[in-house]
Amino acid sequence: MTMPAAGDAEVRIDLLGRGGLRILQDAAAPGFGLDAVLLADFAAVRAGERVLDLGTGTGVIPLLLAAKQPACHICGLELMPQMARLAARSVVLNQLAGRVQIRCGDIASAAAMFGRATQDVVVSNPPYYRDGAGRLNASPLFAAARSERFCPLPVLLDSTAALLRPQGRFYLVHRAARLAELVAALEQRSLHVERLRMVQPFAGKAANLLLMMAKKQGRGDTEVLPPLVVYCAPGRYGEEMEQIYGRDFISGCHTDR
Amino acid sequence: MTMPAAGDAEVRIDLLGRGGLRILQDAAAPGFGLDAVLLADFAAVRAGERVLDLGTGTGVIPLLLAAKQPACHICGLELMPQMARLAARSVVLNQLAGRVQIRCGDIASAAAMFGRATQDVVVSNPPYYRDGAGRLNASPLFAAARSERFCPLPVLLDSTAALLRPQGRFYLVHRAARLAELVAALEQRSLHVERLRMVQPFAGKAANLLLMMAKKQGRGDTEVLPPLVVYCAPGRYGEEMEQIYGRDFISGCHTDR
Repeated sequence: MTMPAAGDAEVRIDLLGRGGLRILQDAAAPGFGLDAVLLADFAAVRAGERVLDLGTGTGVIPLLLAAKQPACHICGLELMPQMARLAARSVVLNQLAGRVQIRCGDIASAAAMFGRATQDVVVSNPPYYRDGAGRLNASPLFAAARSERFCPLPVLLDSTAALLRPQGRFYLVHRAARLAELVAALEQRSLHVERLRMVQPFAGKAANLLLMMAKKQGRGDTEVLPPLVVYCAPGRYGEEMEQIYGRDFISGCHTDR
Repeated sequence: MTMPAAGDAEVRIDLLGRGGLRILQDAAAPGFGLDAVLLADFAAVRAGERVLDLGTGTGVIPLLLAAKQPACHICGLELMPQMARLAARSVVLNQLAGRVQIRCGDIASAAAMFGRATQDVVVSNPPYYRDGAGRLNASPLFAAARSERFCPLPVLLDSTAALLRPQGRFYLVHRAARLAELVAALEQRSLHVERLRMVQPFAGKAANLLLMMAKKQGRGDTEVLPPLVVYCAPGRYGEEMEQIYGRDFISGCHTDR
């Protein structure tokens, strides 16, 4: 059931560094990116917490979080049945079915599915582009991973605000270019940005990604961490990236989508 | 008139690097800080633009901007008459009276004083602390420079939004800790943050200041520049700070208020 099988012509098993995790990816469907790995590293999940990943795709974030925090319960919600099935198989492949669950459904209905104020932590690596912006892709699977066609940002944030308990935390990775829009939209929903880390491709370059933590009904200061610098030279990861990935890490991660 | 005179027991003339500028400071009143110098460096003023500095204090920002952009008209608005008088004397001392003006008045009344949608650029190095927060200071001059007692943040932003023409630019320096609050409050007033630069005391430390540019009715991406790192070792400025200051620069700048 978990191994590549008939009909799985393009499915492969990739290694996911930490603790020998493995993940199934389908060459005909979106894979996970650097961004998801960075978000899983950035997110701080405590023992006993209930965590929901909105738009889980391959399930990479629940797998990485489950490896990082053995005493929590994580669910990944995915709209596309084909993606959800593959993610569920990766969970079984890693013998994590007791702690990680994959469900198929729409982020717009997540609060009804899971209940309001039920989550300690919500994480998301959502599509980065407004519907109609950026490159187009005819495949609905790729379009859903890339554009907000199936999940506009306000829907994601409304659902997140409804799902989190008071003081619950939302961890998000997104394009740096949308920082102001994101902060304003989060604050409108009583999701107060308390930690921010920019991601720069190189030391002297503008950031291209951001990692943020917003707290439901939070009122604290915003801590802005030093940026994470991905490359120290073209094609060569910097020191911190090496630590996040591990040297032998990740045969199936792509850095651009 | 411009030199220290009777009643000026504690007034001294400090050097202000760029182009031989000089500035009067009174040891019994707030001096300018590193933050003002960074903001003047960060702000991009074009030839012919009309610029207003809200809460100008010693007048350091108008002086630095006038030196950087010889073809613009700059006004500094200051609430405290004693500060405004000293700033006006520094303008005369530098023979900048033709292009730089200091006016005494309340930021809350600035749109009435200067007219709505009249400014191409507004700059501000406002007080950093909510009234009642942080260290207290009995002197109204120091309290006004440090706490929002005389100018709450919403008043500053309301006035800025009223003063700027469409597509006009607001350059602000503030505490990094208030980033989320600032972005949300700016966006509420159609001041869209299009450029952000964090300031870190050291390379590996969280930011303590931010520099931002928000555009009135802007809709563009947010560019997040690499952080400015102030010190490369305790007490020793980093390379970029040396460039901003100049090696022989600024006898009268303090780095903490």
